[in-house]
Amino acid sequence: MRKQHLDFYGIDYGVMNPLAPSGQGEQNDEYSAALAFAINEHQINHWNALDPRLKASVVVPYEDPEASVKEIRRRSGDRRFAHVLMLTRTSELMGRRRYWPIYEAACEAGLPLGVHVFGYSGRAASNTGWPSFYIEEMTEHSNACQAQVTSLIMEGVFENFPQLKVVFIEGGFGWLPTLGYRLDRGWQRMRSGLPHLKRAPSEYLHDHFWVTTQPMEEPENPAHLADLMQAIGFDRILFSSDYPHWDFDDPFVALPASLGEERRRQIYSGNARALYGFE
Amino acid sequence: MRKQHLDFYGIDYGVMNPLAPSGQGEQNDEYSAALAFAINEHQINHWNALDPRLKASVVVPYEDPEASVKEIRRRSGDRRFAHVLMLTRTSELMGRRRYWPIYEAACEAGLPLGVHVFGYSGRAASNTGWPSFYIEEMTEHSNACQAQVTSLIMEGVFENFPQLKVVFIEGGFGWLPTLGYRLDRGWQRMRSGLPHLKRAPSEYLHDHFWVTTQPMEEPENPAHLADLMQAIGFDRILFSSDYPHWDFDDPFVALPASLGEERRRQIYSGNARALYGFE
Repeated sequence: MRKQHLDFYGIDYGVMNPLAPSGQGEQNDEYSAALAFAINEHQINHWNALDPRLKASVVVPYEDPEASVKEIRRRSGDRRFAHVLMLTRTSELMGRRRYWPIYEAACEAGLPLGVHVFGYSGRAASNTGWPSFYIEEMTEHSNACQAQVTSLIMEGVFENFPQLKVVFIEGGFGWLPTLGYRLDRGWQRMRSGLPHLKRAPSEYLHDHFWVTTQPMEEPENPAHLADLMQAIGFDRILFSSDYPHWDFDDPFVALPASLGEERRRQIYSGNARALYGFE
Repeated sequence: MRKQHLDFYGIDYGVMNPLAPSGQGEQNDEYSAALAFAINEHQINHWNALDPRLKASVVVPYEDPEASVKEIRRRSGDRRFAHVLMLTRTSELMGRRRYWPIYEAACEAGLPLGVHVFGYSGRAASNTGWPSFYIEEMTEHSNACQAQVTSLIMEGVFENFPQLKVVFIEGGFGWLPTLGYRLDRGWQRMRSGLPHLKRAPSEYLHDHFWVTTQPMEEPENPAHLADLMQAIGFDRILFSSDYPHWDFDDPFVALPASLGEERRRQIYSGNARALYGFE
């Protein structure tokens, strides 16, 4: 992998996002906590120790916030870890109070929160039932991200944890501007029911969220990609490869040249350095 | 209502979309069919008879396709009906074969299919559970639309019913272009599992779907609204007021002047005339 990926593409840092089995969302709390601990040890001892360019995620058994806090505190200050990791399909929506201790601990540790798609919510992939094709499940990941972003904003998480930074991973990014317009429109009309929000939803969206590139939602017209990214904020988009998955994005060609050198450099490198504090 | 709405705003035609109670999605098939029939009678006898500018929807008891077909055939050729109406939160995703007889009957009757948000799927509003606030449920309507559009395309509905035209109502529209990019990207990589699709998903999206304006997802910058509408197609967007709901859009001010007179005329009037065959 060093030869095939890190050296070949000249990668300075890669954040590992362990999916399954990693203990996340397991229904047995002890098993979940033990597996999350083991995966975290494995990331630093097996991967980071062999190549320090690989940064680890603090995998947490997120359905058990107390155990999650313990795991975050155990890794606090250890610069081999880049962020705290959850998955999008939680048992309840992420804004709900049961998950707040995780956000508090992430802020204390000075770590962003990464939220990768997948996970096990115990519910159908769509809010109207199970689809027939894999491509439909893939598409639903973006809908799960939208529900989670909305929940985090509406429940007042960022009023309580103003330092919290959240990265949504592998859920696409094209949905983000429209979600902001939709939430602002609803908030203008329903804000009397949301007195705990001090600002328009799109302001929280802009200040607290980052998104990653893979999978790229690429308009036919390259100018529209630039417009879309502009609406999100060029400083809010992080390159992700999805390596070693079969549908990974080749770093050499993922971002079209039409974006320009400076913006490509931001997305490939500068934004992640700023967010994670990589040198 | 004539004085307050139709005359006041100079409205030539309004399509009525009865929501609840209208028999749609009821769990008792006989009750569902009886109520749908009654609502259709009510629309023509109580509303259209008093003011023929008001066009009716063929409300169908869509969880019972056989009864739905009977109701569509009963109204076939009756120009007082503008389209067949379903709701977004069906028991199963709309692309699945159980609903195909409805699409076949709509095509036979030469009627578009309207799909209005709401309904009862028996599932939580989001694929990650129930939200706390009404604004979150409102936001989830757009996700339900995305799941349904995806299902209709992926299951091959439009290969089997090439005449079918579908209008998504009150789910917003800003999600549509990005959904097309996302589906095309996935299809390029997964098309071997979708041999029944002859074209890219975005082509079905463009040829078979219409959206309505209310609620407007309005970017701060009016130029971005024009870009967004352009990506959808200015000929694919129908004005909807949501009258008489509290959050309805005032026809006088809903569409910003920056769109230009011709495009505003298309959206306010021309597109609906073309789709529904209104004179």
